[in-house]
Amino acid sequence: MLHLKTERNNEMANKFASRRNIDFILHEVFQAEELTQYDLFRDHSRETFDMMIDTLWKMADEFMYPLFQEMDLYPPQYIDGTAKVHPSLPEFMKQCGQGGWINAAWSYERGGQQVPSLVNEVFSYLMGAANSSMAIYISLTTGAANLILNFGSREQKDLYLKKMTAGVWQGTMALTEPDAGSSLADIRTSAEDTGLGHYLIQGKKIFISAGDTTATSNTINLLLAKIKGAPAGVKGISLFIVPKYRFSKSGELEYNDLSCTGIEHKMGAKGEPACQLSMGDQNDCFGYLVGEPNMGLSYMFQMMNEARIGTGIIAAAKATASYYACLEYTKQRLQGRKPGQKDPASKQIPIIEHADIRRLLLFQLSVTEGGLSLALQLSKYLDLARVGIEREKHELLVDFLVPIVKTFSSEYGILSTSAAMQCLGGYGFCRDFPIEQYYRDIRIDAILEGSTGIQGIDLLGRKVTMKNGRAYKLFIGEVKETVMKAGMIPEISQQADELARGLGIMDDVTAYLLEVAGRRGAEEFLADATLYLEMVGLVAIGWQWLLQGIAAHSALQGATFDGDKNFYERKLHTLRYFMTYEFAKVDGLARTLKTSRGLTASMNTSVFGEE
Amino acid sequence: MLHLKTERNNEMANKFASRRNIDFILHEVFQAEELTQYDLFRDHSRETFDMMIDTLWKMADEFMYPLFQEMDLYPPQYIDGTAKVHPSLPEFMKQCGQGGWINAAWSYERGGQQVPSLVNEVFSYLMGAANSSMAIYISLTTGAANLILNFGSREQKDLYLKKMTAGVWQGTMALTEPDAGSSLADIRTSAEDTGLGHYLIQGKKIFISAGDTTATSNTINLLLAKIKGAPAGVKGISLFIVPKYRFSKSGELEYNDLSCTGIEHKMGAKGEPACQLSMGDQNDCFGYLVGEPNMGLSYMFQMMNEARIGTGIIAAAKATASYYACLEYTKQRLQGRKPGQKDPASKQIPIIEHADIRRLLLFQLSVTEGGLSLALQLSKYLDLARVGIEREKHELLVDFLVPIVKTFSSEYGILSTSAAMQCLGGYGFCRDFPIEQYYRDIRIDAILEGSTGIQGIDLLGRKVTMKNGRAYKLFIGEVKETVMKAGMIPEISQQADELARGLGIMDDVTAYLLEVAGRRGAEEFLADATLYLEMVGLVAIGWQWLLQGIAAHSALQGATFDGDKNFYERKLHTLRYFMTYEFAKVDGLARTLKTSRGLTASMNTSVFGEE
Repeated sequence: MLHLKTERNNEMANKFASRRNIDFILHEVFQAEELTQYDLFRDHSRETFDMMIDTLWKMADEFMYPLFQEMDLYPPQYIDGTAKVHPSLPEFMKQCGQGGWINAAWSYERGGQQVPSLVNEVFSYLMGAANSSMAIYISLTTGAANLILNFGSREQKDLYLKKMTAGVWQGTMALTEPDAGSSLADIRTSAEDTGLGHYLIQGKKIFISAGDTTATSNTINLLLAKIKGAPAGVKGISLFIVPKYRFSKSGELEYNDLSCTGIEHKMGAKGEPACQLSMGDQNDCFGYLVGEPNMGLSYMFQMMNEARIGTGIIAAAKATASYYACLEYTKQRLQGRKPGQKDPASKQIPIIEHADIRRLLLFQLSVTEGGLSLALQLSKYLDLARVGIEREKHELLVDFLVPIVKTFSSEYGILSTSAAMQCLGGYGFCRDFPIEQYYRDIRIDAILEGSTGIQGIDLLGRKVTMKNGRAYKLFIGEVKETVMKAGMIPEISQQADELARGLGIMDDVTAYLLEVAGRRGAEEFLADATLYLEMVGLVAIGWQWLLQGIAAHSALQGATFDGDKNFYERKLHTLRYFMTYEFAKVDGLARTLKTSRGLTASMNTSVFGEE
Repeated sequence: MLHLKTERNNEMANKFASRRNIDFILHEVFQAEELTQYDLFRDHSRETFDMMIDTLWKMADEFMYPLFQEMDLYPPQYIDGTAKVHPSLPEFMKQCGQGGWINAAWSYERGGQQVPSLVNEVFSYLMGAANSSMAIYISLTTGAANLILNFGSREQKDLYLKKMTAGVWQGTMALTEPDAGSSLADIRTSAEDTGLGHYLIQGKKIFISAGDTTATSNTINLLLAKIKGAPAGVKGISLFIVPKYRFSKSGELEYNDLSCTGIEHKMGAKGEPACQLSMGDQNDCFGYLVGEPNMGLSYMFQMMNEARIGTGIIAAAKATASYYACLEYTKQRLQGRKPGQKDPASKQIPIIEHADIRRLLLFQLSVTEGGLSLALQLSKYLDLARVGIEREKHELLVDFLVPIVKTFSSEYGILSTSAAMQCLGGYGFCRDFPIEQYYRDIRIDAILEGSTGIQGIDLLGRKVTMKNGRAYKLFIGEVKETVMKAGMIPEISQQADELARGLGIMDDVTAYLLEVAGRRGAEEFLADATLYLEMVGLVAIGWQWLLQGIAAHSALQGATFDGDKNFYERKLHTLRYFMTYEFAKVDGLARTLKTSRGLTASMNTSVFGEE
């Protein structure tokens, strides 16, 4: 066994995702090529998509994955007032810039390739599966550049976008402060108008990912601050570009009085430093207003939504890579015999033959492939909205799905990497295998970009009720359509019935909670929003599994190769697994949601007092 | 916030458990003092129990807890052929020896203090809460010494026990090998009878906790091996004492050809090294047979059961310490406002005021105090069996509860530390707070001493069916008795009804599964044993919460101090929480167990094939 460790580590080095599955979801479930009928995507075809994925896979395989463990073992150091990160990062950023990976979705005129979100999110998934810490540098730069692209002035675009999309400058989102994490209304960083085209920024930010590093020569922080005299709370938040190095009047880069004062020591996701930033210690930190004053939060929500979707995808990616490391082990590791087979002279069997191990594998598949599918479903809605097909409908569906995509993959992803570890036993807990790192890395995803509690309140308190429940109804409509289709296929009609049953429970609970809102107020209404989010998440993932089941069932009819048959059978098995093992949780969640009656909201805090 | 981190770390340094809760469970729930009516415990009283707990608490507080983080930051190193561990460990072992903590339960004549298990397990809990890595050195030494005490020869007892209970020599359990982890039938370590009173041992062991360290001058491995020519499988396993240094004929200590060949690099539980051991490289490793040949596994089950109970208790302890670190934070951290309170000029509130945070706190309480209570319930049964009160009944109940005590606290304990981390947000993920360490440390408990899958098969495949289901029926009887009592108290009768409902579901599922066993065979019967174990665990913990509810309700009537009232109210709240939020999972689990129909057992492994 001991020699196996090293051998296997080499063997499986590059299996961090399944190309077969990506192709299946892109083409057999979501018909990516249909998007090329629209002008925006007219130059694309399955071939261009394939080619781009091939190219990125090569980089992921040869450059990113080999550094996955190393970046954890040698995390960034705070040296000379900056986060000294892994030396490969400047080259990585440059390659991503040259490869067009930072702005692949942009228009040709802006240097992009007009790639649909559906495909672009596969790029994020791939990078996340190969090396999630590296992927963060890119997704942050893309998100920050997108903000400037959409809301910045022409001058701002000219000044920053080229360098950022070339991977020469890093972008960040700078929101959190010591006293304002979940509650952005309470940020204190201030901005004073100088009347000279810039503001003077003063304040502290914390937990700023890649906020100031040696990965690039400059960092462009997209930062929230309050202009002096602005209204209190979220209505007084403005968005600023605050670079580490600004352009002087003569066009030279000069220090912008923004310093990194330290980095956090984290349990995982170590390759990307969480920086503490201080602005204006010398009262000389310039910030450049983006768009209108006091509109900062609404602009930032664009980046925040992208980041939430991205978090969901990267969480699914981490859990995917963890699954493949686990799968390989379960095929090779010999241990025990089937129940009933008591002969100790018989050979031990690969642990994948044990029912409990298969259950753990199917769990991981159901989480990772279900989560990826839901994220790509959302991306397809984004594309349809972008090309003007039923824009309002598709935008509402996107809004509704964001907290679910973010939360399902991050929360169930934690359990998925834990299941992978369980399959490896003691080895899973050790550094010889990559799983303990995935287990540590993924834990942050349920916290950052709005913790699970915040996502629950977003879903129940905002998304369900907005526009008279239109988004909610559209979601139900989409699920029902899939249920109808699947209901006509005998092999999966039982799962369709089960989803319909769960949908009914969900609708019943939703009606009940809305009544609570009216009768008992917001606090009791939202007290169990996290559980509500989990329940809706199970419905959404069940829907995606049914969609995959429809596609797999249809393809299985014409499949001739064993590999294909196995693949489609696996999809049908995973659908059955999910609906039998995970979806059954809907009942318990509904029971709790309907009987908790404000237990946590109404209780007296003093019971947690000194003992 | 940043300054808060350091301050709080100091403030809360020593709150790793609740004395109030320990006293409540020991005395108000389990009437520990009643045990002193029996001869064995006649010298004890509440006062002696209190005094011992006070003494241990002082050591836990002043010696163990302050090293908790340090032992993680500076894990053992493999140097000069041994695991060089934290330099405080020799002194710690010595203090434990002098304090009588290694053999407190032993008879006076053996140097013990005849402490009931009920109280002795509180000692383990306290040590585990203060510094679980340190606690392991003690529990292993106790377990190994217990084995020698019960099955060793008089000479063996004389040679080893004094040094071990004095903390001068470390004990271990040496079972796992490269090709035999879960499957002990497949161990290969061999023993050859020399006819000179010892065997020659040859083989390799891995994952041996504290297997060879600088904590003590000698290590006494209680090791499983196969005597040459013994039957295949578990029927051919014998138990040996294999010290690192043996006594020569002249009574000097000499090297016993047992070497440590390396240690694992683990994600957590770093203070205790997992050692790789090699025996007999020079064909000069002596092993001393314990008891009869080929009876090794049945002897070892005594230590294994102790270790499983101990794992459950230490997992509950880790989650308890994590809870108290979390609780403190939620009281001090100001963030956000109540739903409906939109005025941004109003002060932010402590996050403990948010319903979702309270839910996470109640979850942690329900897991940690429920898990501790169940472990002490088992310990009380042990004590009653030991003094000869309905011995068979109490022994059967102990057997039935072992896999549940082990698994509930380790599996739900993972979720509990995760909930603690979630309350702290980004800080929870960072090293400034201890929670990320608890989160890493506790993950091993669902793996070691028989993984959760093994425990599930033990419960369903062995404990439920043994002696015609007698243990199972006794368990139901105990739960029903509590349901009856609680049902007569209006304030908690609803929770009693809910438990009765769950008990009915459990019984229905059990009957169904037994029918499956007969009709479809062992593999399908046991396929979902892990889920079955979770379901029975929820019933068992619900039972314990109902017991606590009865005691709290009764005490509340006479309580006059606010502190007492709050404490008992918290118990009642946690009971309500558990039955509403966690117990509701019974429905989904039952649904899965009754509808999975061998999904994982019958599937073809090839669907997991290459893609």
